[in-house]
Amino acid sequence: MNERACVLGIDIGGTNLRIALADKSGKILARSSSTTTNMRDAPSVVATIRECADQLLQKTGIARDAIAAMGAGAPGVTNAETGVVIATSYLMGWRDVPLKSLLEEAMGVPAAVDNDVNLAALGESSFGIATGTPNFVFLAVGTGVGAGIILKGELFQGTAWTAGEIGYMLVPGVSEKPADPGQPGPIESVAGGEGLRLQWLSRWDPAQTTLPQNRTATQIFDGAVAGDALANSLLDRAAHTLACAIHNMTLILNAPLFVLGGSVGLHPALRDRTQNAVDAHARRLRPRVVLSSLGSDAQIMGAIRLGQLTAQG
Amino acid sequence: MNERACVLGIDIGGTNLRIALADKSGKILARSSSTTTNMRDAPSVVATIRECADQLLQKTGIARDAIAAMGAGAPGVTNAETGVVIATSYLMGWRDVPLKSLLEEAMGVPAAVDNDVNLAALGESSFGIATGTPNFVFLAVGTGVGAGIILKGELFQGTAWTAGEIGYMLVPGVSEKPADPGQPGPIESVAGGEGLRLQWLSRWDPAQTTLPQNRTATQIFDGAVAGDALANSLLDRAAHTLACAIHNMTLILNAPLFVLGGSVGLHPALRDRTQNAVDAHARRLRPRVVLSSLGSDAQIMGAIRLGQLTAQG
Repeated sequence: MNERACVLGIDIGGTNLRIALADKSGKILARSSSTTTNMRDAPSVVATIRECADQLLQKTGIARDAIAAMGAGAPGVTNAETGVVIATSYLMGWRDVPLKSLLEEAMGVPAAVDNDVNLAALGESSFGIATGTPNFVFLAVGTGVGAGIILKGELFQGTAWTAGEIGYMLVPGVSEKPADPGQPGPIESVAGGEGLRLQWLSRWDPAQTTLPQNRTATQIFDGAVAGDALANSLLDRAAHTLACAIHNMTLILNAPLFVLGGSVGLHPALRDRTQNAVDAHARRLRPRVVLSSLGSDAQIMGAIRLGQLTAQG
Repeated sequence: MNERACVLGIDIGGTNLRIALADKSGKILARSSSTTTNMRDAPSVVATIRECADQLLQKTGIARDAIAAMGAGAPGVTNAETGVVIATSYLMGWRDVPLKSLLEEAMGVPAAVDNDVNLAALGESSFGIATGTPNFVFLAVGTGVGAGIILKGELFQGTAWTAGEIGYMLVPGVSEKPADPGQPGPIESVAGGEGLRLQWLSRWDPAQTTLPQNRTATQIFDGAVAGDALANSLLDRAAHTLACAIHNMTLILNAPLFVLGGSVGLHPALRDRTQNAVDAHARRLRPRVVLSSLGSDAQIMGAIRLGQLTAQG
């Protein structure tokens, strides 16, 4: 029996750090989460990861040398070969951070890293709703919009590790003006959480809605379902725009499955209307649009899977 | 020395059948071409292929058993695993034709088949301008518009063998109305040869152009280069629309290279303006748009490559 039978999955987010200790099969034995709001430089994040990992080992009574490998997700462009995080958003502000090396030095076990949306796709592919589907796309709709792409059963990350950056896709009805650096892309402006919040602020008018002026994207979607006309028009436009992006990805990749995740993407009304809009455009293949079955655990399960793959060498 | 040192490359087009006998390195030793206009059923096409192959062998003095394998391209959706052509356009009207088996029975050597645009991509990847570029897209702009996609150095055909059907992509400025079966898709209407011809017919007005009413796409592009205003507006719109499609594919696939081929796609003015329009939208990666270096031989060279791969088993 292999003594090194556990893996650590790590999800480094813009606001939260989550760590899980899992057994050989991927079952989570213990988990912890902490804020990254006042702690964003890489060495501090790695030190916190080490502390949290030690606590998980203590809590479960598992020895440190039972950890075979770690998988970690970072919220930005990541070179999965070298383990260097090339760039994250302005919130974290990382540039060329050698995260794999930092983790391996801190913990003394092999590590692998990838972009967090890619890991969510890997999670759904290994433990979630996309198990057994060799070609599919995970759509992360949170503050922004991005995609993790699995082709022939493997992550496809592209030549410069930016495959799936679909928030900047050009579809009918979006602005063609190139987005300024750091600003939401055309798809994100219409279907991302921050874009929806800003649209609501600018279009809010007490003559058109009974809802308050300060709403999140999911609150707007709840309002749409409850019958609010203004909220409904925003939800419809978001679904229509996502459907155009899915239509284009279907033509290019001929993938039969799109898994919606992220805080905004998990709203059932968005899924329902997106599927309807996709069906209206469908050609030979009618792709299915489904909700992530792992929900907010998609990334961490992908990190666990990456740890497993790293343990297998 | 391997006695079976030759391969046959076969390009079955809507109007022409082309066959080449190549040596181990892919060098063409002899070639022939014939019309398929009055001969479209699969058994007749296969019988013609056999006759042409025999003539090539006779001409070169090469024995039949020197042929190690054949690769063939078909103008439609093709299952490259089983070698069945699932569907071609109404011109040929093939449905579920077991082309691989028919060829193997007729010739007595192993065969493999794929879609012709996929083979053009394989040709550029193995013998043309994309040699050494693991991720790239071949854009075939002829009567219609389609793409052959190479990822991680291999053809990517998708779940139902329709990856790259980009003529139906939705980008700003195209009609969102779903195309009727057999009709050009939104991108094809603007940038495909038949679409350009129809646009020219409907927009032709002696007050706006000095060119005749009956022009092909390449003649329209020639007119644009010579300074004709109406021709120029059609060329600009075709380039802008192709650039949007390339922008979207770049975001999804993060591919650095797009190779333009096909009778319309080989026009240098289309390449130049498409590259300019792509540059205006470019983000991290500025993809290069280049002309096919194999030109009208891209498909047949891909068929030869497929034959080589089949010979290697």
